[in-house]
Amino acid sequence: MTIPQLDFAKLGGILPVVVQDAASGEVLMQAFLNQEAWDLTVRERIAHYYSRSKGRIWKKGERSGNIQHVEEVWIDCDDDSVLLKVRQEGGAACHTGYRSCYHRRVDPEGITVVGTPLFDPREVYGPAGPGDEAEAREGVHPTGAAHP
Amino acid sequence: MTIPQLDFAKLGGILPVVVQDAASGEVLMQAFLNQEAWDLTVRERIAHYYSRSKGRIWKKGERSGNIQHVEEVWIDCDDDSVLLKVRQEGGAACHTGYRSCYHRRVDPEGITVVGTPLFDPREVYGPAGPGDEAEAREGVHPTGAAHP
Repeated sequence: MTIPQLDFAKLGGILPVVVQDAASGEVLMQAFLNQEAWDLTVRERIAHYYSRSKGRIWKKGERSGNIQHVEEVWIDCDDDSVLLKVRQEGGAACHTGYRSCYHRRVDPEGITVVGTPLFDPREVYGPAGPGDEAEAREGVHPTGAAHP
Repeated sequence: MTIPQLDFAKLGGILPVVVQDAASGEVLMQAFLNQEAWDLTVRERIAHYYSRSKGRIWKKGERSGNIQHVEEVWIDCDDDSVLLKVRQEGGAACHTGYRSCYHRRVDPEGITVVGTPLFDPREVYGPAGPGDEAEAREGVHPTGAAHP
């Protein structure tokens, strides 16, 4: 198949990807793609992202097992943003165990956490817990690493 | 009200914002916030973004009239991405007249355009049409300007 060419230049080689639950329509997370992650995601129909902190391809779920099966791929009007509709293995996309990374609502009176975690991050990521968010999501260096 | 502090540093002063129709759950677009756009959006409950091409705040709909009323604001697990649930004035978020900027699906056999435009961009943006996407969305310089 032909993989559409996207505009990765505006952000220096990456572009944002929005990830939506194909069944419920819930927005699960937002990540970034580079050219290689885009190619892998479209070809394999399994979500691959670009990890800014590690500087490498990150297959979502590579550590937690919570991979994302890509049911639909959409591109935006100016070729610099992607929407994936996915089936989320394990039910939760967030390294905290919540279904969505967007589980905190900003209300006039403060922040409200909505929902409950579907898994215990310590069971998924080991006794040290997920630690740094990038480590947790990206599956390496559980005891800490710099965010470049 | 207190406006939560977000991590704008990772992308040099901006972060991605995902915009979802509050009623239908459809993802309408993705844009960027800087600190000022974030403050304005949370305080006024009207979507304001940061235009990368113009280097200024862009009140969505400032030219087309298709403003976005913010019904809910969500922040992600690591404070570097925002989800807005909005009521879209005029029904269409995209400068092309389509309801969503994500109106092109990438199928194995090619790109499929889904839906029909809800307005004629030439009527909204003038006889020259929307021209450059950034100009169209951001409402200035209808005859062309560089994307920095």
